[in-house]
This record gives sequence, structure tokens and C-alpha cells, in this order.
Amino acid sequence: MRLRVVLVEPLYEGNVGSVARAMKNFGFHDLALVNPCKIEDFGSAMASHARDVLQMSRSFPSLPEAVVGANLVVGTTGKRLEREQHHLRLHLRVPCLTPAQLAAKLNGKEGTVALLLGREDCGLNSEELAICDMVVSIPTSSEYPVMNLSHAAAVLFYELSRAESGATELASRQSLNLLQERANSLLQDVCYPEHKVDFADLMLRRIFGRAELTEREARSLLGIVKRIRWRISHSQEREPLPSVTRSQR
Amino acid sequence: MRLRVVLVEPLYEGNVGSVARAMKNFGFHDLALVNPCKIEDFGSAMASHARDVLQMSRSFPSLPEAVVGANLVVGTTGKRLEREQHHLRLHLRVPCLTPAQLAAKLNGKEGTVALLLGREDCGLNSEELAICDMVVSIPTSSEYPVMNLSHAAAVLFYELSRAESGATELASRQSLNLLQERANSLLQDVCYPEHKVDFADLMLRRIFGRAELTEREARSLLGIVKRIRWRISHSQEREPLPSVTRSQR
Repeated sequence: MRLRVVLVEPLYEGNVGSVARAMKNFGFHDLALVNPCKIEDFGSAMASHARDVLQMSRSFPSLPEAVVGANLVVGTTGKRLEREQHHLRLHLRVPCLTPAQLAAKLNGKEGTVALLLGREDCGLNSEELAICDMVVSIPTSSEYPVMNLSHAAAVLFYELSRAESGATELASRQSLNLLQERANSLLQDVCYPEHKVDFADLMLRRIFGRAELTEREARSLLGIVKRIRWRISHSQEREPLPSVTRSQR
Repeated sequence: MRLRVVLVEPLYEGNVGSVARAMKNFGFHDLALVNPCKIEDFGSAMASHARDVLQMSRSFPSLPEAVVGANLVVGTTGKRLEREQHHLRLHLRVPCLTPAQLAAKLNGKEGTVALLLGREDCGLNSEELAICDMVVSIPTSSEYPVMNLSHAAAVLFYELSRAESGATELASRQSLNLLQERANSLLQDVCYPEHKVDFADLMLRRIFGRAELTEREARSLLGIVKRIRWRISHSQEREPLPSVTRSQR
């Protein structure tokens, strides 16, 4: 399991440096920054002996570019947003895990996991959470749930460093996106009600995310969808769509 | 389980403030400072909404005063000191636990646990570790094992916040100290070789620490030691010490 840490629009260079240090403390080196603040002397000082992690980090103008190549995209949320997120969770159908549950899920898996950490003041927004396969939240006190960014990062790295690599290769982002695309086409092939398509799309993404599809499974599903679509187009050419009763047999 | 966080001679006020914040994030409020640096605006800023924890913290001129009333004293060490500490561990006979092991040990216990965090540059020294019942160490990468003080604190608080209080009352520090004192007297009563007394003292402290004695057990042990000492003094008055053979019967 390779971890890519993605800081989304961090506001303070000190936090970026601190996160780099915590990464190296737990053996992680791949740092991606989305539209970050300027990182100068103070950020570098906070990185301490992890300046190399900071120097090797890559900056991206937007989030989708920062997660290219990741097999799994994991978002993080704080409890402060619990109310909004309850709504979000319902809306986005994001399963919310504890750090220990996430580590257990990743244990024995092989692939790149992009861990998204949001802005210091307002975290990740709903568009950013929408592209996540899973969301993790650290259980904190309701009296003061808002953790410092680098503290939250350290706790997550601590848990994830305990997950061991294994032989189960997670599906590539490419296969997942292709599967998503083909499933969407299939919905259109069967004239699925247009106002329900977005919802179904998101639901499928969540199910694939929760299931932690392997590459083999993703390819098999692609094969099945292809077969179904072929059968539909084939029957459309030669005969009218089979009645519901017939297809249910 | 009540947690008292004891920062031993912290050098940077920012770290003290950050530790206070992490404490409140996980529901802990009792902060003791041993001979700390000055804490001014920056420390207060880093505490953010945990300024109350900082304001209610107590300062002590030395460590023993900061752990008064604690049932269990837990030290922390970094991997950087592993070599020295291997020696120290052998010398001090400190069982070294992971944070998860510590949390599991404290689960279901009742009492005050003093968690000692050392200086940013060199941690806790051997005298300070000698008074600890247990030592905890966060498993970090050998490439860069030295964590920031507040990061290490956050990881420990995260794990300890998962331990649930229970009905098993840990022995009071007073009972433990009394037991230690009486055991030492017993060693002298039986003319235990003087050059071995310090070692035996430390070994007993470690065993009591590892066993997490309850108050009831500590009192029973005190009763047993009292009875033995009474028997010895009694036999010394009336008759010579029983022979080994006789006492073994």
C-alpha cells in the first residue's frame, strides 16, 4: 500500500512543513499539494529533517490532477462539520470510517491510496468529497473537535503505517473510471429515468469504493457490462426490446 | 481513567500550546508542567480554543511533585534513543509498550495516569524513566524516528481516548510507595546482599507496574509483608532464625 498525501489548498506553510515531518516519521514520502500557500523558510523549518519530502512534493492547480493514478481516494472530515456532513453523507453516500477501520480495510492490499486533507478553516468541500471512495474521521471530543491539520495527519499516518502491504491489487483508477463510464452508458441504454442517473452514478461509485474492488474484479465487471450492452444493441437491431416479463425469466 | 499530561522541561511555548489543544481535542484537561519555558502569546495562540487548558495548567519545580496522586506513571521515549534505551531498559527493567498496548492495559481501569513527555531535544533522562511504572514508544520509521512533541502527544491522546473507564481501581501511588518501602525493609530484615538491594528494588517496582496492582491487591501485599516482618522479628526475639530446611517445610 503506497500512501499519497494530498493537501487541498493549505493556508499555512507551517502546517505543510509539519505534515511533511509527520509523513517521514511514519515512512511516507509522496506529498501532493493542490493550490497551496507559499512555502518558505518557516515551512521548511517545521519540516525539520523532512525537508526532502517538501522538496520532492508536487503542486497541482486542481484536485483531480493530484489523484491521477491513485487506486483509492480517501477524504477526511472533522466532527465540526458533522451536521452538514450528515446531510452530505446522506447526499453523497460516503461511508465514514474511523482511522482504525480504514487501516483494517487497507491491510493486505496493494495499490496507491490518496489521502485528502482539506483547508485548515473549512476542510474539504462537497465537490471534493464527491470524488472520494471513502471518508475517514478521527473521533474527537465534542467539546473541541477541531484538530490542528498536522495533528490529524499524524494520527492518520500512525494508523495507516500499521497496515501491511499484501497481494490483493486494488483496481486502478482508470479501470474504476471506465467502469463508472460504462455503467452510466448502460443506464442510458436502458432509458433509466434521467433525473435518477446522477444519484445512481454516485451510488455505484460508493458501492465500488466500499467494496475495494480488485483490478481483476473491475475487469470482470467491465466484461459483464460490455456483454449486456452488446446484447441490448444486438436485440435492438433485430427485434424490439424484450418485455420485462421475458427479461425476468 | 483520568489522564494527567506532564510535560517535563518543555523548551518551546508553541509546543506547550499545541499539546494543550490536542488534549482538549481528545477530552483531556489536566496539564502539569515541570520547570517549563515561558508561555506567552505564541503558546496561547497555538492552544487556540484550548487556552483554558493552558490557563488551568500547574507548574512544578521538579518531576516528583508533578506526579503526586497518580496511580500509574507512564514515561515516553523516542526511537532515536533506542540504543541507549536498550541499555536503559535492561538497566531500568522498563517494559516498553506501543500506544495501542498501553491503551489496552488501561482499558477498564479506574485511577489517574500521569503521562510524561520529555524535552524536545533529549526526551526524559534515566532518573525520570526510573520512576515510571511503564514506558510507551510510538513505532516510527527508522529513517526519521524523531516526532514533533505535539504530534507524539496527539497520537498518544488518540489511543488513550479509546480506553474506557471501568470498575478496577488501580493502587494509589501512596500504597505503591509504602509497599516499595516495606519490601525494601523486608530485604534488610533478611540481610539481603546490600549490592543487590537497588536492583531488587527496581525489579519489584517494574513487576508491580506491569501487574497494574489494584488498591486491594496492594493492601493485601502490604499485609503479607507486615506479617512476614512480624514473624521474623518475633522469631529473632525468641529463637534463632529458622534454618532453610525448616522454613522450606
